[in-house]
Amino acid sequence: MLIVQKFGGSSVADAERVMRVADIITRTYRQGNEVVVVVSAQGDTTDDLIAKANEINPKASKREMDMLLASGEQISIALLAMAIEKLGCPAISLLGWQAGFRTNSKYSNARIKKVDSERIRAELDKNKIVIVAGFQGLNKYDDITTLGRGGSDTSAVAIAASMHADLCQIYTDVDGVYTADPRKVPNAIKLDEITHDEMLELATLGAQVLNNRSVEMAKKYGIELEVLSSITQKPGTKVKEVTNVEKMLITGVAKDTSIARIEIVGLPDSPGIAFKVFALVAQAHVNVDIILQSVGRDGTKDISFTVPEADGEKTVAALKEYCERLGVKTINCDTDLAKVSIVGAGMETHEGVASKMFEALSDANINIQTISTSEIKISVLIDRKDADRAVASVHSKFFDTDD
Amino acid sequence: MLIVQKFGGSSVADAERVMRVADIITRTYRQGNEVVVVVSAQGDTTDDLIAKANEINPKASKREMDMLLASGEQISIALLAMAIEKLGCPAISLLGWQAGFRTNSKYSNARIKKVDSERIRAELDKNKIVIVAGFQGLNKYDDITTLGRGGSDTSAVAIAASMHADLCQIYTDVDGVYTADPRKVPNAIKLDEITHDEMLELATLGAQVLNNRSVEMAKKYGIELEVLSSITQKPGTKVKEVTNVEKMLITGVAKDTSIARIEIVGLPDSPGIAFKVFALVAQAHVNVDIILQSVGRDGTKDISFTVPEADGEKTVAALKEYCERLGVKTINCDTDLAKVSIVGAGMETHEGVASKMFEALSDANINIQTISTSEIKISVLIDRKDADRAVASVHSKFFDTDD
Repeated sequence: MLIVQKFGGSSVADAERVMRVADIITRTYRQGNEVVVVVSAQGDTTDDLIAKANEINPKASKREMDMLLASGEQISIALLAMAIEKLGCPAISLLGWQAGFRTNSKYSNARIKKVDSERIRAELDKNKIVIVAGFQGLNKYDDITTLGRGGSDTSAVAIAASMHADLCQIYTDVDGVYTADPRKVPNAIKLDEITHDEMLELATLGAQVLNNRSVEMAKKYGIELEVLSSITQKPGTKVKEVTNVEKMLITGVAKDTSIARIEIVGLPDSPGIAFKVFALVAQAHVNVDIILQSVGRDGTKDISFTVPEADGEKTVAALKEYCERLGVKTINCDTDLAKVSIVGAGMETHEGVASKMFEALSDANINIQTISTSEIKISVLIDRKDADRAVASVHSKFFDTDD
Repeated sequence: MLIVQKFGGSSVADAERVMRVADIITRTYRQGNEVVVVVSAQGDTTDDLIAKANEINPKASKREMDMLLASGEQISIALLAMAIEKLGCPAISLLGWQAGFRTNSKYSNARIKKVDSERIRAELDKNKIVIVAGFQGLNKYDDITTLGRGGSDTSAVAIAASMHADLCQIYTDVDGVYTADPRKVPNAIKLDEITHDEMLELATLGAQVLNNRSVEMAKKYGIELEVLSSITQKPGTKVKEVTNVEKMLITGVAKDTSIARIEIVGLPDSPGIAFKVFALVAQAHVNVDIILQSVGRDGTKDISFTVPEADGEKTVAALKEYCERLGVKTINCDTDLAKVSIVGAGMETHEGVASKMFEALSDANINIQTISTSEIKISVLIDRKDADRAVASVHSKFFDTDD
């Protein structure tokens, strides 16, 4: 089998952890597999480098920032290769550009255009374990780029897709995907399997285990992922196109407490207004989530929508001039909200999922402000202070059994 | 003018020093010059990386060691480019391979084969200050190599040679080349100019200001070097083919206290023996310096020679079997010695230089054990405990004036 294994920064934070990771890799190799490893920068390396840069020039160009940050993975791949050599297996480390990562030129948030995997293949054919620097690539000017947040997950999936790997294992500090955050919900259940779509919904809902871009790419190329812990080394959660286990009604309960709701009160009730509002928001590079539009009354209507909390003020600023011109009385930015969601491919074919969720919230005496649904997701907006109680109550309603 | 400026690790050890170096560079640029900068890894970065590697695998492959260490300059070039951006000048950092450094494949001590300077030229033509990572290159397998000790000096001279630069400035933490170590000899004099040959002799004699390979390359390609301080920013010492100032009799007094003398007593006095001895030493990759061979007597002769102190035991081991076979009674390794030398192109045309040196040693009541001379150098071996006194006395004899 050709297996891609990805290890995050905390998995290689110090010499001891590097040796533990090397042990996982060499055992996979000695079982007769071809192994390509993708690794992130060690522990706090990236943050330390950013601090160094800020001390010198907080407005440094992104090109130089990428040059700086890419050194982090260079250190971790070399150390990991040395650790594998010590365990008696042949290994070679490759930088992003050596491993064939070609990207566009959007420094600090580049997209992978292709992976020319000839070099990786050649090293595998020499029976080597190949250690690839995640998070980085090369643009058409022969300059170093980085892939942005969670980029190493994407690097791993891109290699798996390019080389038609049999499995792509993402090692993290959690041992799989849970039905809720296990630190908050003690009886959260680890899932054996989950579909790509469910994983995508859970990720966008604030249950970040895998980077979304990597799951999207895995879905597109039909790559099977496995999320597992580099510490416990037990089987994790498989992310695949079709899950084999008897379909669970829902696969998870997630919350997102870093949202803001923008409310525009008193817009003229005429065609094209909503379009213009969201065009302005898009121009400000803000992603809009749940939208609610009131029915027109007295020639005016209200629009509210949620955005990432960090973008709240920016969104208001982008709309201010236009709204004043239209005679809008109020634009609010409300950050006292949380979004709680349930996700599950099973709800497509089962009725009553929504009402079960609302019952759970009612049991907990929590007021629902807004509801939004998709094929495999139901989200509600509630008071932020109620978020943890809401997750616990909903989770209990769907997952606690009398067995 | 096209000026290459090289800054060592201590010159860019922290944010403040990086800014100071950026100030030197931007002032040179604003005077209308094209500026290519070569920079080493910050302060202790290289040592820290080596420590990390040793913790994991003290016998790591040199290829992976080079991958690891090359990250050090990647950090410093990015930070320096950011500092220059902050001062309002356009800058771009280039890794060794991006700057066109092609080397052989001897990891950890690679030789530069050529510098394809098209990219550097293209960036200069865009009016950019170009910051190049010293110490590193790429071999024919597209793998990162490092140039070994003092490699950044060599990188700077190689760029200067490849681009026909008008001047190559080597910034260090001393403000030039002195007639003796100024920390030991208070009345040491800073030289305004020195020839490449004199600089080479001084470097090999333990007065390491410039890396020897870089001086050899500068001599070969006729590059004028200037050694100067990044702190005082006063004019330093120029290293050039012909010095203009009235020729000084000697340019410097140097000592080397890390030598060992190997003595082989009672070798058969027959042809080919000395050849075989030094062939064995060469096979052990040990450089031999001062050789003394006794006149044959009773069919035997003695040979003694000096080697770097660190190679003493290795040298004895390499000779042991051969010498025992020949019936040699004694092989000694004596580490209680120092070499004190005077260097100067002037001595070629002046008599009495040697006797003046010996007089100075005699004045100080220091016994000379061995003497070795070349066109521009006279070296003596003396007791190591006398080394500092010897340098002071010789320096005083040649440089103290009654003016």
